[in-house]
Amino acid sequence: MKFPQPVPVRELAAQLNAELIGETELIALGMNEIHHVQPGDVTFVDVEKYFDKALKSAASIIILNKRIDAPTGKTLLYCADPFQTYNNLALHYRPFLPVTAAVSDTADIGEGTVVEPNTIIGHHVRIGQNCYISANVIIGDHTVIGDNVLIQPGAIIGTDAFYFKKTAAGFVKWRSCGRVVIEDDAEIGAGCTINKGVSSDTVIGAGTKLDCKVHVGHDVRIGKRCLIAAQTGIGGNTVIGDDVVLYGQVGIAQNLTIGDKVVVSAKAGVSKDLDAGKSYFGLPAGEARKMYRELAALRLLPEFFAQYYK
Amino acid sequence: MKFPQPVPVRELAAQLNAELIGETELIALGMNEIHHVQPGDVTFVDVEKYFDKALKSAASIIILNKRIDAPTGKTLLYCADPFQTYNNLALHYRPFLPVTAAVSDTADIGEGTVVEPNTIIGHHVRIGQNCYISANVIIGDHTVIGDNVLIQPGAIIGTDAFYFKKTAAGFVKWRSCGRVVIEDDAEIGAGCTINKGVSSDTVIGAGTKLDCKVHVGHDVRIGKRCLIAAQTGIGGNTVIGDDVVLYGQVGIAQNLTIGDKVVVSAKAGVSKDLDAGKSYFGLPAGEARKMYRELAALRLLPEFFAQYYK
Amino acid sequence: MKFPQPVPVRELAAQLNAELIGETELIALGMNEIHHVQPGDVTFVDVEKYFDKALKSAASIIILNKRIDAPTGKTLLYCADPFQTYNNLALHYRPFLPVTAAVSDTADIGEGTVVEPNTIIGHHVRIGQNCYISANVIIGDHTVIGDNVLIQPGAIIGTDAFYFKKTAAGFVKWRSCGRVVIEDDAEIGAGCTINKGVSSDTVIGAGTKLDCKVHVGHDVRIGKRCLIAAQTGIGGNTVIGDDVVLYGQVGIAQNLTIGDKVVVSAKAGVSKDLDAGKSYFGLPAGEARKMYRELAALRLLPEFFAQYYK
Repeated sequence: MKFPQPVPVRELAAQLNAELIGETELIALGMNEIHHVQPGDVTFVDVEKYFDKALKSAASIIILNKRIDAPTGKTLLYCADPFQTYNNLALHYRPFLPVTAAVSDTADIGEGTVVEPNTIIGHHVRIGQNCYISANVIIGDHTVIGDNVLIQPGAIIGTDAFYFKKTAAGFVKWRSCGRVVIEDDAEIGAGCTINKGVSSDTVIGAGTKLDCKVHVGHDVRIGKRCLIAAQTGIGGNTVIGDDVVLYGQVGIAQNLTIGDKVVVSAKAGVSKDLDAGKSYFGLPAGEARKMYRELAALRLLPEFFAQYYK
Repeated sequence: MKFPQPVPVRELAAQLNAELIGETELIALGMNEIHHVQPGDVTFVDVEKYFDKALKSAASIIILNKRIDAPTGKTLLYCADPFQTYNNLALHYRPFLPVTAAVSDTADIGEGTVVEPNTIIGHHVRIGQNCYISANVIIGDHTVIGDNVLIQPGAIIGTDAFYFKKTAAGFVKWRSCGRVVIEDDAEIGAGCTINKGVSSDTVIGAGTKLDCKVHVGHDVRIGKRCLIAAQTGIGGNTVIGDDVVLYGQVGIAQNLTIGDKVVVSAKAGVSKDLDAGKSYFGLPAGEARKMYRELAALRLLPEFFAQYYK
Repeated sequence: MKFPQPVPVRELAAQLNAELIGETELIALGMNEIHHVQPGDVTFVDVEKYFDKALKSAASIIILNKRIDAPTGKTLLYCADPFQTYNNLALHYRPFLPVTAAVSDTADIGEGTVVEPNTIIGHHVRIGQNCYISANVIIGDHTVIGDNVLIQPGAIIGTDAFYFKKTAAGFVKWRSCGRVVIEDDAEIGAGCTINKGVSSDTVIGAGTKLDCKVHVGHDVRIGKRCLIAAQTGIGGNTVIGDDVVLYGQVGIAQNLTIGDKVVVSAKAGVSKDLDAGKSYFGLPAGEARKMYRELAALRLLPEFFAQYYK
């Protein structure tokens, strides 16, 4: 998430009641969790073994729970509970707004776009031209939708990331301040659920078509012209290339990279990165030729043992 | 789809701006894609290698993009873009009608049928007697529902087929002009999605019960007295017999035939036709006895290799 | 289900038009199907091979279709169709009430709880304090929700059990008179479906978090602080311990017991009870170490056969 306007780190430190270490004149441009940080971003770390990763990341400002030396050119913000402080920051810049009307006053809806009844368009949503938003759809706050997009009935766009921090008091939810961005000519099937990014964006690329009941996790980035069949699910932070085809009921784990033009057979369970242009199959998914050879060998195994142990 | 009234082919040719070849006096009764054509139907073909299949099909009138001789007794309609012409024909006879009210004026709802709040009943829907249509349901245009049918909350019936033509400009959607037909005593679970046929019907047979979040693709025909457990998905054009039991999270690929009284275990992935009366299991699904023998053999394999390579 | 007040068995027999055998002075406290009976409960049995199980169960009153001697201290209620009689009893004490308003007059909603638009809260629902019930949610009759619970958009809570009796006339549905109970600090994801108990309760434990489109069958009991990822499904009557983690698209069959702190990998299909504290994987799911050894062996099999049969 980018802040509505740049924030000097001194001001940030005061606002968060944190102790400033290192550069005192930096300007914070936004905030992001560690997977998505860019220069100017605030991030946080609260487990010592990840300090190094956070300090060497692109983030300019790091909230943390130990007084250490700041790397050159960076600002550290020391406080007792970095996670809660980060959550508070998210809540400050993207406050929770209850639904107050079917279509929020702050939603910006382009010419030629139709919104059917029983549909809720949240606050600060931007929808382009000539879209069709069907009945019983929910479009969460800050969602951005391009032109010529079709949202089928019952789709739910912009729900919270399923992302919790385990604490002694139970699971505490990361405050999702990210967005969902749906590019031109995309289609979202009936009953799909698309989580918003934790602090970044979940993106459905231009011309990509989702069938019914597809689930897209937080911060997933799907490329252009993909076809994703019914009941498929994609875990958080995964990046999918262009022209990818996922057949029905495929599952793709979190934090993976799927190359361009990959084809994944129905019901496959993907647990590793997939190379561009290849076909995959099975649980766990492997390259289709290899998997079919294994299946063929397995077919022979009962008879082999029957002979071998005769 | 049958046309509301028969259309002489000369009139059709003029309407579509197509060149008429062969029989000039035929009467078109309806339209269908190649999997479902009947005598009197219009269909189309635009890839030369499929010309023969289309010309020899039951279709009486074929829209195509090459001037060739018409088979005896058939009419060809030559035009530059048969797919678009076919889509236009679908749109002409089944125009798109936005939702205008919770229950359309043109819906015909039988005696004793209850419709709960927040539910949308589309145009030209017919619902029989003593049905119960729960809250937050969407029933799309032209759906036909028999007597004593229960539709649980949040079910979405009659959404578009997930069926696209790949073109240089991206995926172009087939205009779905088919319907969903739900026969007497059927039950549709909460959050189910049932696509309408592309040009034909998707059918849920009498007495068949769908659990929550089942997905049924376009033009699927499910027989009578089937039990289909939660989160199962069935691909387009597949035909399922009577008295079939599909356990939870089963996936059945498109264009298959599943015999009567078949039982498919939970999570199985069916990629081939299944014989009547048998039980199936696994990914890809095989006959249960065979699959269990393979699993038992696989169990022994690590120890076998440990001994063999010792 | 407990009856609103205790019912003497003589009164019950008269009400159900059943013949009383055995103890005539018992007081019925509630009703339950055989999996969940407690002392004071009415249950039924109509298949002779299950008579013994029913008679020896904790149930105090058994509806059955044969005149036999009552065990000491129990009452038998003889009638022609015990299933229908039991269904009638359920319907009598928990009559079907159509939705009449967005929030029923009889719903009891705690202080600080927010209910968004387009949401339906059924009759006799109890919701605690500081809950957030999002838009397009349906909460069925008699549901009980604790404090600080978040229900995401489009969740459907308290739908019928998918539970039918096969008769010559087709499937007849068990009348679900059970409830859904969601304890404090739980979260129910967008598009989840949770069935009510047949005659008992479906329970989501305190602090447990469900991701989007999870399906929970009838009478399932999920413990505390579990994490259940998207598109997972849990079959009826299954009991899940505390601190369990189910990754995405897991399926768990009906009538199982899953120990505390179990972890099940994505897409696994669980068909047996799972031991506390272990990790599981695969279809059918086995202990992860064992399954990975099998997978590693299978990888070698094609080359082994190639050498062996050379």
